[in-house]
Amino acid sequence: MNRRNIIKTMVLSGGASMISPKVFSAMGPTTMKSNSRILFQGDSITDAGRDRDNTNANNPRALGHGYATQIAGLLLKGSPEEGYKFFNKGISGNKVFQLSDRWEEDCLKLEPDVLSILIGVNDFWHMKNGKYDGTPEIYERDYRALLSRTLEALPAVKIIICEPFLVEGGKAVGSEWPAEFAAYRKAAARISDDFDFPFVEFQTWFNDALTLAPASYWCPDGVHPSLAGANLMAEAWLRTFRSL
Amino acid sequence: MNRRNIIKTMVLSGGASMISPKVFSAMGPTTMKSNSRILFQGDSITDAGRDRDNTNANNPRALGHGYATQIAGLLLKGSPEEGYKFFNKGISGNKVFQLSDRWEEDCLKLEPDVLSILIGVNDFWHMKNGKYDGTPEIYERDYRALLSRTLEALPAVKIIICEPFLVEGGKAVGSEWPAEFAAYRKAAARISDDFDFPFVEFQTWFNDALTLAPASYWCPDGVHPSLAGANLMAEAWLRTFRSL
Repeated sequence: MNRRNIIKTMVLSGGASMISPKVFSAMGPTTMKSNSRILFQGDSITDAGRDRDNTNANNPRALGHGYATQIAGLLLKGSPEEGYKFFNKGISGNKVFQLSDRWEEDCLKLEPDVLSILIGVNDFWHMKNGKYDGTPEIYERDYRALLSRTLEALPAVKIIICEPFLVEGGKAVGSEWPAEFAAYRKAAARISDDFDFPFVEFQTWFNDALTLAPASYWCPDGVHPSLAGANLMAEAWLRTFRSL
Repeated sequence: MNRRNIIKTMVLSGGASMISPKVFSAMGPTTMKSNSRILFQGDSITDAGRDRDNTNANNPRALGHGYATQIAGLLLKGSPEEGYKFFNKGISGNKVFQLSDRWEEDCLKLEPDVLSILIGVNDFWHMKNGKYDGTPEIYERDYRALLSRTLEALPAVKIIICEPFLVEGGKAVGSEWPAEFAAYRKAAARISDDFDFPFVEFQTWFNDALTLAPASYWCPDGVHPSLAGANLMAEAWLRTFRSL
């Protein structure tokens, strides 16, 4: 899978005045097995206030207020025949080493068929505010080790690497941060290329979106998306998912 | 506006590999004023676990886990130039007379430009379980009075009437209920015709959806939609909204 191979034309929904199996089946990729388990992993952007005591699949409280729920809602509506099971195990504040610490419980035991990972902004942010002394090299090394470990345990899993992003103009984002953060984004892109995993170019999507409305609209602090930003992420993610 | 005038073809998103103003502006109706305030009103289906202390526009916690958030997310993403402000004031358990009781505070004072109302299932359900002695005639009379009062206070408001629905096969739905409930659905349809307000035919959408997956998928108890069902409602609602 080439990460630049984004679907050129697609229709989320429509073409008939009433729903029909034809409209519905246009939603997901055609190569997925039935009842696929789709797991979102990451930090606060993924967590998005989810109820961590709720372990039910496809439950909006369990999926949180962010992009995971927006994605799940669209796919569950659009592809009822697939029987997708969505889970979210993002935890606020996580860096890549903290994913590793809880990987057995919060990923491998769940046996996902599709695993979507968005991690990296805290590896940078917590370094900037003095809470953590990581580097882009440590991030890349730990991230590669996590993926190798995942493939060893779950050789058939399809992994989607989400580009970590910072939205310029967000209140928490220093003027020099986007340039410095590029090292982390590039590490994630390199990893996705080397592992041949699809890559969701969130930074490009937010950069494009800034031509239409300011950071306050899409991602007020530059890190945590608004509802508009979460839906932008959902659209970006779905285009990659459909190419699986 | 004829309530049967559903847009025949439409595209929620797509047509280009990257977002662009052209794609984005395809989302909403073209006749709305900028920064329109869109208010969702109703019962638990609308409420959907919203944080009632959060009065911020466009906040997913304030909008809840239901169709309101799914709609807001798609429109905020798709039409950033519109500056939409979404609010949800649905309250679990409400019947039409309870909307009337709190209408000044929870509707008129908010001065919505678009008002979407989904009410009626409790007018029936609470009668069935002996908590309330209303009838379809009382429902219709009170609903008409509420709308007349609304137009008097807010003559320019655009009102969307949402069809109340029961999903057959849902755990809380008795076998004879759908036939009995038809009187409430027909009352809502009559009201929308008489007032010339657009009508979202949720019952038809859920009936069609049952040909693809059972009630447990769309609306487990027959009254409260799942995430899939909430998204189905969002699609139905958006088609009506675009025709405003």
